[in-house]
Amino acid sequence: MSTVDQQLEEIQDTIESEIPPDITVTEVKYEGPELVVYTRDPKQFAQNGDLIRRLASKLRKRITVRPDPDVLTPPDQARAAIEDVIPEEAGVTDLDFHEDTGEVVIEAQKPGMVIGRHGSTLREITQEAGWTPEVVRTPPIESSTVKNVRNFLKHEREERRDILEKVGRQIHREEMSEDEYVRITTLGCCREVGRASFILSTPETRILVDCGDKPGSEGEVPYLQAPEANPLNSIDAVVLTHAHLDHSAFIPLLFKYGYDGPIYCTEPTRDLMGLLTLDYLDVAAKEGRTPPYESEMVREAIKHCIPLEYGDVTDIAPDVKLTFHNAGHILGSAVSHFHIGDGLYNVAFSGDIHYEDTRLFNGAVNDFPRVETLVMESTYGGRNDYQTDQADSEEKLKELINETYEKEGKVLIPAFAVGRSQELMLVLEEAMREGDIPTMPIHLDGMIWEATAIHTTYPEYLRDDLRDRIFHEDENPFLADQFNHIDGGEEERMDVAEGEPCIILSTSGMVTGGPIMSWIEHVGPDPDSRMVFVGYQAQGTLGRRIQSGRDEVPIGGGGGRTEHLKLNMDVDTVDGFSGHADRQGLEDFVRTMNPRPEKVLCVHGDERSTQDLSSALYHEFNMRTFAPKNLETFRFL
Amino acid sequence: MSTVDQQLEEIQDTIESEIPPDITVTEVKYEGPELVVYTRDPKQFAQNGDLIRRLASKLRKRITVRPDPDVLTPPDQARAAIEDVIPEEAGVTDLDFHEDTGEVVIEAQKPGMVIGRHGSTLREITQEAGWTPEVVRTPPIESSTVKNVRNFLKHEREERRDILEKVGRQIHREEMSEDEYVRITTLGCCREVGRASFILSTPETRILVDCGDKPGSEGEVPYLQAPEANPLNSIDAVVLTHAHLDHSAFIPLLFKYGYDGPIYCTEPTRDLMGLLTLDYLDVAAKEGRTPPYESEMVREAIKHCIPLEYGDVTDIAPDVKLTFHNAGHILGSAVSHFHIGDGLYNVAFSGDIHYEDTRLFNGAVNDFPRVETLVMESTYGGRNDYQTDQADSEEKLKELINETYEKEGKVLIPAFAVGRSQELMLVLEEAMREGDIPTMPIHLDGMIWEATAIHTTYPEYLRDDLRDRIFHEDENPFLADQFNHIDGGEEERMDVAEGEPCIILSTSGMVTGGPIMSWIEHVGPDPDSRMVFVGYQAQGTLGRRIQSGRDEVPIGGGGGRTEHLKLNMDVDTVDGFSGHADRQGLEDFVRTMNPRPEKVLCVHGDERSTQDLSSALYHEFNMRTFAPKNLETFRFL
Repeated sequence: MSTVDQQLEEIQDTIESEIPPDITVTEVKYEGPELVVYTRDPKQFAQNGDLIRRLASKLRKRITVRPDPDVLTPPDQARAAIEDVIPEEAGVTDLDFHEDTGEVVIEAQKPGMVIGRHGSTLREITQEAGWTPEVVRTPPIESSTVKNVRNFLKHEREERRDILEKVGRQIHREEMSEDEYVRITTLGCCREVGRASFILSTPETRILVDCGDKPGSEGEVPYLQAPEANPLNSIDAVVLTHAHLDHSAFIPLLFKYGYDGPIYCTEPTRDLMGLLTLDYLDVAAKEGRTPPYESEMVREAIKHCIPLEYGDVTDIAPDVKLTFHNAGHILGSAVSHFHIGDGLYNVAFSGDIHYEDTRLFNGAVNDFPRVETLVMESTYGGRNDYQTDQADSEEKLKELINETYEKEGKVLIPAFAVGRSQELMLVLEEAMREGDIPTMPIHLDGMIWEATAIHTTYPEYLRDDLRDRIFHEDENPFLADQFNHIDGGEEERMDVAEGEPCIILSTSGMVTGGPIMSWIEHVGPDPDSRMVFVGYQAQGTLGRRIQSGRDEVPIGGGGGRTEHLKLNMDVDTVDGFSGHADRQGLEDFVRTMNPRPEKVLCVHGDERSTQDLSSALYHEFNMRTFAPKNLETFRFL
Repeated sequence: MSTVDQQLEEIQDTIESEIPPDITVTEVKYEGPELVVYTRDPKQFAQNGDLIRRLASKLRKRITVRPDPDVLTPPDQARAAIEDVIPEEAGVTDLDFHEDTGEVVIEAQKPGMVIGRHGSTLREITQEAGWTPEVVRTPPIESSTVKNVRNFLKHEREERRDILEKVGRQIHREEMSEDEYVRITTLGCCREVGRASFILSTPETRILVDCGDKPGSEGEVPYLQAPEANPLNSIDAVVLTHAHLDHSAFIPLLFKYGYDGPIYCTEPTRDLMGLLTLDYLDVAAKEGRTPPYESEMVREAIKHCIPLEYGDVTDIAPDVKLTFHNAGHILGSAVSHFHIGDGLYNVAFSGDIHYEDTRLFNGAVNDFPRVETLVMESTYGGRNDYQTDQADSEEKLKELINETYEKEGKVLIPAFAVGRSQELMLVLEEAMREGDIPTMPIHLDGMIWEATAIHTTYPEYLRDDLRDRIFHEDENPFLADQFNHIDGGEEERMDVAEGEPCIILSTSGMVTGGPIMSWIEHVGPDPDSRMVFVGYQAQGTLGRRIQSGRDEVPIGGGGGRTEHLKLNMDVDTVDGFSGHADRQGLEDFVRTMNPRPEKVLCVHGDERSTQDLSSALYHEFNMRTFAPKNLETFRFL
């Protein structure tokens, strides 16, 4: 008998000795980090108030109780019982019964009302229906991504359970080594921005943190061929800090190369990764490049995702516990905290962070039980990388909009679909509501609408006050009338271009393709209109060239010819809307960090930024700091 | 056709276009780093003066020409021809004909006379006999190690050729990667003395430098399980800097774990490694420990050795050239210089070094075409690790000997078999020759005699003036009459103990076992005798305890009882005979190094020594210095 089976047998014994004798446990197994307990008496389990909580605390595991399939109430009967229990105001839109596991997925507009105070409604559901409920939110704005991911996972439910069981057994395997060490290997994003990727390893375990692309490079991939990462199927777990492509683009590639394990991320990160990586493949195909993997691999990745919520302490290996904390950067972005061994060592990877609160998100969490080493982003770590205060930036943006409106022109804003667009939507919606700028249509083109829909599906991940507003449908700012989703293609764009003054948010954010190209063609020649850059424009992009004053741009003419278009619109830049902490924010993050780490690795920034920041943190806080190169391995402990 | 075969075909074409039309080349192949050219016309090849040299320089390869086996002169006929050519004073002791390769191994007391001026005699041998000669020295003192190794290699000749051919094809494989980097991973001997081991890697190649044990530990092995070293059969080459067990003990273990490639070392290192690792297994067995590998693995290691001479620039991988330089530490010890890529990067591993000349060896070489990074030993790198000048130490030793002689006592010196013993033999021989101490017997017990025999087999590796003396038999100091090899066991020891005043050199050097234990029993109780420590006594050894004043030692009584023996002899310590550079020597090595490296990794010393030295080199020479931990990976370039 394997040691995991022995362990499960012992756990079943413990459970049986703790529960009332009238409750029968038929099976105990691992599914990913959870312990699943099958019982013939799910209703009694649910009646015994905090029994599950007590067991969880005794066994120090997350526990899910499921009815043994043999005793399952027929779905029709269960449906009636469930509909009886859930108040109508919860707005249930779907009930999905899984007879193999006795779970019922309840999709509702107000999940909180399905859960009830301290889970009381959920328990009532089990008591009355005998099924184990799982609640998801009905997207307030329909999202094809969320729908596709949910349908896909439903379809792959059986295989997913096999995957989770395998992962669960891996996590709970016996520790083999007597050595003690913690190592971090840099596979990318050191002295460069892009291709974030690290290996965190102990004698037992290898964890890959992020696996992104490098924008502006010719397909540079993280150093996955490094021995520290090989063979790829020896990696225990992949942790994805957030969905931006410079962190996620090559996650699906791992499955092509033989990785077959779990991906830990938040639920919105999973969905956004799906959206962004599929778009990444699309763009590659459109540009005539061979995509590095097929869309099938994106599905593999999604199938292997194990979503975690902020604050959940989760076993992901025999000697590693992972906890995500809000990073304030984009939806679902996470500071990833690893607790290694039993009190042995703690490492936090910041991922990308925003230290101050923004309209969308609370500021990054920097409060941990313990942390000895911090791996920290340094995008704006340079000695002069201070950004304009967002309040001032908003004032400037509003002025520019008002000026343009007076000339009856249009404001064209190239923006990244995920994060910056939603922040701007909030700025613009408020400005109109408060009368700072005239109410006019705000057209959203490219993936912005879809990304916004995903934001509204996961309001728990947004800033407290925004979340509260979204919970009350009539205050959900993303549902404001001004917002118009451009879904009528080129025709709609031409209508808009010929129409009244308006604001247009369109991808791509660096003017490297996508619908912004059409908008430039339609709006660019108009001297009364204006383009406003709100995000970083990388060297070599058309955005950077326009920003620098170029007033002629190539557009695709008929028959493969390239024509040149004269730009007459005004061009302005408003900084201060970045999703990244600036130099001050990075220093503040470390200054107020509790506890303060002993060592900091400054990564995810160009050579100057990482070295400036490393040196500043050393001098200011007297900690050991490093600006590593790619392909180095640090040993801690 | 593989790229190596293509390459060989092109090389054969080139050779054929360079040589006179009457010379036929039948085959060209790689054997290890050498290119072997088979010809039907070996005599003509030899007649054409510097043809081989010209080809070697054109092809930039080391070239050996061998007669095609089809045209081989019968051995009897060849023997007569060879004996005709070689002058009698050369003292040929053996001719060994290998019909498979057309090579004849000539063992002679004076190899120089077989070689002739610029190899003229060798060429004459080929011209007259049609065979390719290879010359080895007849050991002036019979060495069972040298004899065994030579016989073994003769016996395994066929398999060895297969190994060499495989290695040769590996070395000359096509380069695959477009990346450029150089990495060093520390597998041992960082912030500790012992278990020296490093991985030097490039995108193409992995090289393991040393693989030693850690004396005084409970079998601590280098971190061979590190991913940077795995799988072991992905390692291209093992480089052994010298034969001491803290560098060599686990070289044979590699073959047990699946390594199957070449070991580059000097010829004396190969033989001494054989001697020391077999003894290591013996000691383990005697002490009731399970040896980590079997003696069969030592033979595997020897079979895979490719001996290099100091100064030979040798291709050991598609992108790596290795050159050994004298390190001054023990016989055959080498500073190992790696030239990576075509002028890309250069790394030197000091191994263990002695910077000043000693009686046995010239001081370590620190003159290289280029070197960016130095990995340097730090045994005596601590801020106070200055040693007594050897001249003063010799004076003190002679005084102690004279005092003891006057009391008619005996001088007992525990000594390491390899290196320190021979240095002392030279000191004592000279002192007697010059009348500084009375002439008396010097008894050599343990492996000292055998190690000395190996020294005399390879005089090329000794200090210039000593080498010259050994070439003249009547001046070979190791053949002096005073030296007596204790080969009569306990009986002889008892006779010596009861006899006239004398000096006894015996292993083990730290009094942890071996014949020194008997000597203590016989000589220890005599108040007129004296023990003199000349080497480092590690914490926890009996040597250290006696040195610190303990005057009772446990001896094995009959029937498993332990009895205690009262020591009445005087106990003294004379330092200054170390094989390691002291702090001054280490600094001098770097100060006079040409060119001076940009970076230094201070290793092979305890935490304090490596950090002291690292800090001193940084402050003194303004270079980047490190005192790494085990299991770190540095990236250069």
